[in-house]
Amino acid sequence: MAYRAPVNEFRFLMEHVVGFDKVAATDRFTDATADMVDAILTEAAKMCDEVIAPINRDGDLHPARLENGVVRTPPGFGAAYQAIAEGGWIGMSASVENGGMGLPMTMTTAVNDMMSGACLALQLNPLMSQGQIEALEHHGSDFIKETYLPKLISGEWNGTMNLTEPQAGSDVGALRTKAEPNGDGSYAISGQKIYITWADNDFTANTCHLVLARLPDGVPGTKGISLFMVPKLIPDADGKPAERNSLRIVSLEHKMGLHGSPTAVMEYDCAKGWLVGAEHGGMAAMFTMMNNARLGVGTQGIGIAEGALQHALAYAMDRKQGRAPGTGTIVEHADVRRMLATMKSEVFAARAIALMNAVAIDMSTATGDKAWTARAAFLTPICKAFGTDIGVELAATGIQVFGGMGFIEETGAAQYARDVRVSTIYEGTNGIQAMDLVARKLMDGGEAAFALLDEIEQGAENAKATHPELAEAVWQAAETLRETTEWLVSQDDLTNRFAGAVPFLRAFARVLGGHAHLSAAINGDVARLKLATFYIMRVLPEHVGLLAHAREGGDDLMAITAEELAG
Amino acid sequence: MAYRAPVNEFRFLMEHVVGFDKVAATDRFTDATADMVDAILTEAAKMCDEVIAPINRDGDLHPARLENGVVRTPPGFGAAYQAIAEGGWIGMSASVENGGMGLPMTMTTAVNDMMSGACLALQLNPLMSQGQIEALEHHGSDFIKETYLPKLISGEWNGTMNLTEPQAGSDVGALRTKAEPNGDGSYAISGQKIYITWADNDFTANTCHLVLARLPDGVPGTKGISLFMVPKLIPDADGKPAERNSLRIVSLEHKMGLHGSPTAVMEYDCAKGWLVGAEHGGMAAMFTMMNNARLGVGTQGIGIAEGALQHALAYAMDRKQGRAPGTGTIVEHADVRRMLATMKSEVFAARAIALMNAVAIDMSTATGDKAWTARAAFLTPICKAFGTDIGVELAATGIQVFGGMGFIEETGAAQYARDVRVSTIYEGTNGIQAMDLVARKLMDGGEAAFALLDEIEQGAENAKATHPELAEAVWQAAETLRETTEWLVSQDDLTNRFAGAVPFLRAFARVLGGHAHLSAAINGDVARLKLATFYIMRVLPEHVGLLAHAREGGDDLMAITAEELAG
Repeated sequence: MAYRAPVNEFRFLMEHVVGFDKVAATDRFTDATADMVDAILTEAAKMCDEVIAPINRDGDLHPARLENGVVRTPPGFGAAYQAIAEGGWIGMSASVENGGMGLPMTMTTAVNDMMSGACLALQLNPLMSQGQIEALEHHGSDFIKETYLPKLISGEWNGTMNLTEPQAGSDVGALRTKAEPNGDGSYAISGQKIYITWADNDFTANTCHLVLARLPDGVPGTKGISLFMVPKLIPDADGKPAERNSLRIVSLEHKMGLHGSPTAVMEYDCAKGWLVGAEHGGMAAMFTMMNNARLGVGTQGIGIAEGALQHALAYAMDRKQGRAPGTGTIVEHADVRRMLATMKSEVFAARAIALMNAVAIDMSTATGDKAWTARAAFLTPICKAFGTDIGVELAATGIQVFGGMGFIEETGAAQYARDVRVSTIYEGTNGIQAMDLVARKLMDGGEAAFALLDEIEQGAENAKATHPELAEAVWQAAETLRETTEWLVSQDDLTNRFAGAVPFLRAFARVLGGHAHLSAAINGDVARLKLATFYIMRVLPEHVGLLAHAREGGDDLMAITAEELAG
Repeated sequence: MAYRAPVNEFRFLMEHVVGFDKVAATDRFTDATADMVDAILTEAAKMCDEVIAPINRDGDLHPARLENGVVRTPPGFGAAYQAIAEGGWIGMSASVENGGMGLPMTMTTAVNDMMSGACLALQLNPLMSQGQIEALEHHGSDFIKETYLPKLISGEWNGTMNLTEPQAGSDVGALRTKAEPNGDGSYAISGQKIYITWADNDFTANTCHLVLARLPDGVPGTKGISLFMVPKLIPDADGKPAERNSLRIVSLEHKMGLHGSPTAVMEYDCAKGWLVGAEHGGMAAMFTMMNNARLGVGTQGIGIAEGALQHALAYAMDRKQGRAPGTGTIVEHADVRRMLATMKSEVFAARAIALMNAVAIDMSTATGDKAWTARAAFLTPICKAFGTDIGVELAATGIQVFGGMGFIEETGAAQYARDVRVSTIYEGTNGIQAMDLVARKLMDGGEAAFALLDEIEQGAENAKATHPELAEAVWQAAETLRETTEWLVSQDDLTNRFAGAVPFLRAFARVLGGHAHLSAAINGDVARLKLATFYIMRVLPEHVGLLAHAREGGDDLMAITAEELAG
C-alpha cells in the first residue's frame, strides 16, 4: 500500500483543465516547457515515493522531542530533509539569483501536494521555509536577502513563522511581543510565541524565525505590528551561524497528529532581530508569507486526501468480504465504490482548484495583470478551506473503507486523519478563510467572483452540444451561485455575509469542481468522463443546500443567544 | 468545562416530541410516570456528572493493558463501573424477575446517552452487557437465564459479543470458529475472534462471552451458525464462578481512541460453551443483541456530540478574541455561532430520532403491534448511522471551535473525535446500516417508511397555520423524500438502491430531524423556536443534494472500474 505520487493527474490537470499553457507562454516562465514539467514532476515523484513516504509512520511512532532545550527529530527525517534540500525542491519557485529555480508556483504546488501525501509532518518544514523565502524576496532589505535567502533556498537553514501568542490567535493584532531598537540597526525582541511549527530541529545548521512584534511607538492592533528576522544563531560577518541568540524552546505540544513535526512554545528574551519591511508594516509582509502558506496548506489537505485514497483503494481491491461479484473484493460493493469514487472525484476537484489558484499567481507574477492578481486572491481562501476540509473528510472516508481495521493504528488510516486535522485550523481557520472570501475578497463588488462565474458558464455553454446533461447541471449551479454572490455583495451588514460564509465558500468550491470535471469530461478519456459524471450528478447538487444556508443572513442566527445554546 | 448531563433535553423530547406519553399509558410501563422519569433521569445525571465524567481523560492517558494474560483497566474505571452497577443502570430495561427495573427502552436510551457523553470507553462495557441480557431473555434456556441473567443485570458479571474473525467482518457468515458437542449438553468451542470489546477487566467477577460458531453439521454461511455462552470462569453448581475456561486474551489492539476500553483478540481452545437459542439459529439470537446494540451505538454518537458541544460552548463563551461585540468572547462571531447552533440543532435532531426509535421498541414490546415493530426496525439503522455520523462530525466541529487548541491533546476536544471514530464502523458499518435500510427495511414495499412520512406530513399540515414557513419547508422535504422512497421501492435491482443508500439514509434522518424541530417549535419556548428555525431553514435543505444522489442509481457508479479509480 505504498504511496505513489500521482504524476499523471498533475500532467492532465495542467494540460487540459487549469490552462498551464498560458503560464508557459509568458516570458517569465519560458523554461516551463512540457518536457521540463514532465522531468521535474517525475523526479519529485521518485523522491516522494522512495525517500519521503517510507518515513511517514516512523514520524508518528517516534514524535519529535525536546532534550535539554534541543529538538530531536524522528528517525529518517534528517536524511529525507536532505533529499528535499538537495533536489532543490524548497526553492523551486524562488528567484534564480539567490539559488532558486524560478519555476512557476503551479509546479511547486504539484510537488508540495506529492510531498504532503508522502509525509505531511516533514513537508511542513520546507513549506514554512517557502513562505519565508517569498516574504523576504518581497520585503527584505538587501542585507537580509543576501544573508538569509541563499541558505533558506538551499535548505541549509530553515524558516518559521511566529504570529500566535496565548491571547492572540485569530486576532493577531492583540499580540504583546515587544521590539526595542538596540541602536545598531538591530532590535531586542522579547515575548512568548506559541504553536511555532518546526521551531527547531537537528538537521539544519540554523533556524530563522520571522517574528511579529510591536515597536515602542507601535499603535495597538495590527497597524502597530512590525516583522523581524530573529535567527537561532546570529550569522557572523561571513554569514556563518555563530553567536547563540537569546531565544529558547520552552516546550513542545502533545498533538493529535503530526507527531513528527515539533510544535513549540518559544520564549524570546531580548533576542536580536532585524526589521523586515517597514516599521509597523509587519502585517503586509506577513500576509505575503501567509498567502503563500494558505495555498500551501490547502495543498497539504489534498495531498493527504490522495494518500488516504490510494491507501483505501489498495485495501478495497485486496480485501475479500461478502458475496461480491467479479474479484470478490469489497471494491465490488456499491457503497464501497461510492466512497472511493467520492474520494477520487473530490481530490480531482480540490486539486484543480489549487492549481487554478497557482496558475493565477503565476500569471499575476508574469504579467502584473490585476485581474489575475484578483483571481489569485479570490481563490486562495477557497483553496485553503476546501482543500483542507476535503483532507479531513476523505481521511475519515478512508478509515470507513477499512472498516474495523481503520480504527487500529497499525493500519495507517487513522494517522492520515490525525495528521490532517490541524490543516483546517492553522494558517487561519477555515472560518477565517470564509470570512475573508465574503468580506475582503468581495470588496471589488464581486468582480473577481463574477469573472470566474462567467468563465464557468462559458465553459458550460461550450460543452452543451457534446455533453448536454453535464453542461446544463454545471451551468445551473453556476447561475444559482451567481445569484447568491450578488445577494452577498448587496449586504452592507457584514454579519449577513459572515453567517453564511462557510457554506458559501464550499458551494463556490463545488461549482469550481464541477467546472474542472466538465473540462476533464471534454478533454479526457472515458474514465475521466465517468468520474466527471459521478461528481456532477451526485456531488455537485450539494450546492443547493449550501446556498440556501448562505442566503439566510445573520439575524436569525445571531438571535440565538449563547445562554440559549447552553440551556 | 465539566460535562453536565442534559436532563432538560430528555424531559422536553419525551414530553413534547417523541410521544413518550403513549408508552407510559401502556399496561406494561405504567410505572413510568412523569415523576418517576424525572427522578430516574436526575439520579443518572448526577452519577454521570460526578462519578463517570471525571475518569474520561484518565482512560485516554492510561490505556487498558494486558499483563500476564489479564486486562488492567485505567484508574477509576473499576469504581465508576461499580457505581453504574449499583445504581441498577445496566439492567434498567431488563425483566424485573431477574433483578432488572423493567423500565422502557426510551429511558435506558436517555441514560446511555448521558453515560456516553461522560465516558464512552467505560459506557461500552454496560452497553455490551445490555445487549447480552436482551439476547438471553429472548433466546436463553431456563438454565442459561437462571445462571447468567441475575449476575449480568446486577453488573456482578459483564457480557461480550464475539462475531468477528479476521476473514469474517461485515460478512459474518464466513466465520470458522467451531463448536463440537461434548455429549453432556455443553460444547467445545475453538477458534479466534477479533475486536472483542471489554473482553476482560479487573473489576467484574466474571466475563460472559456470547460466541458465534459453527456446529459440525452447520451449513456454510449464516444459516449454519449457532450462538454459545462461553464464560471466562465456569459457574459451579451454586452458580459461583469456578473453573477457568479454556480461552485467553491473545492481545489488545492499539486504537485511535477509546484507549480505556480493551479491544481484544481472543483464542478459544475447546472452551466450554452452552447453546443459546436453536442449533443453527445463532444469527436470529445475535440479531436481537445487535439491534439493541445498534440503537445503543447510535446513542453513543449522540452522547459524544453532546459532550463535544458543551465543551466547545464553554470555551467559546470564555475565549476572548477579535473585536467581538457584547461579551467580547468568540461566541459573538457569526461563524462560531453558526458552528455551535449547528451542533446544538443536530444533537437535538439525532437525539429525537434515537428516542423515537426507543419509543417504537417500547410500544412494540408493550402492545405487540406489528406497525410499531416495523417502525422500530426501520428507525434502527437510521439511528445508528445518523447518530454516529453526527458524533464524528460534531466532534470535528468542536475541535474547530477550539482553533489551535483543538489539536492539542490536553484540551480534550481531540479525544472526543478519536473516541467516537469507531462508532460509524462497529455494530455494522454505516454503509451496512444504509444497505439494511434500503433493502430489508423496504421489503414491506415501503409501508413503515410511508407511515412515518404520513405522520411527518400530517405534523406539517397541522403546523401550517401557526408556523407557515417552517411547516412548508418540512412538508416539501418530506414530499421529496417520499418520491425518492417510492423510486427506491420500485427498483428490483438492489444495486440501484445500494448505490444511493448512504445519502438516502441521511436524507431520511434530515427530514425526521425537521419533523422533530417543528414539534419543538410548536411546543417549546422561544429558544426552541429559534433553533428549529435554524435547523429547518439552513440544515434541512441538505436533503435536496442527498436525494439527487440517492436517485442516480447504480449503473454509472458501477461503470467506474477499480482500475480507473487507481489510474
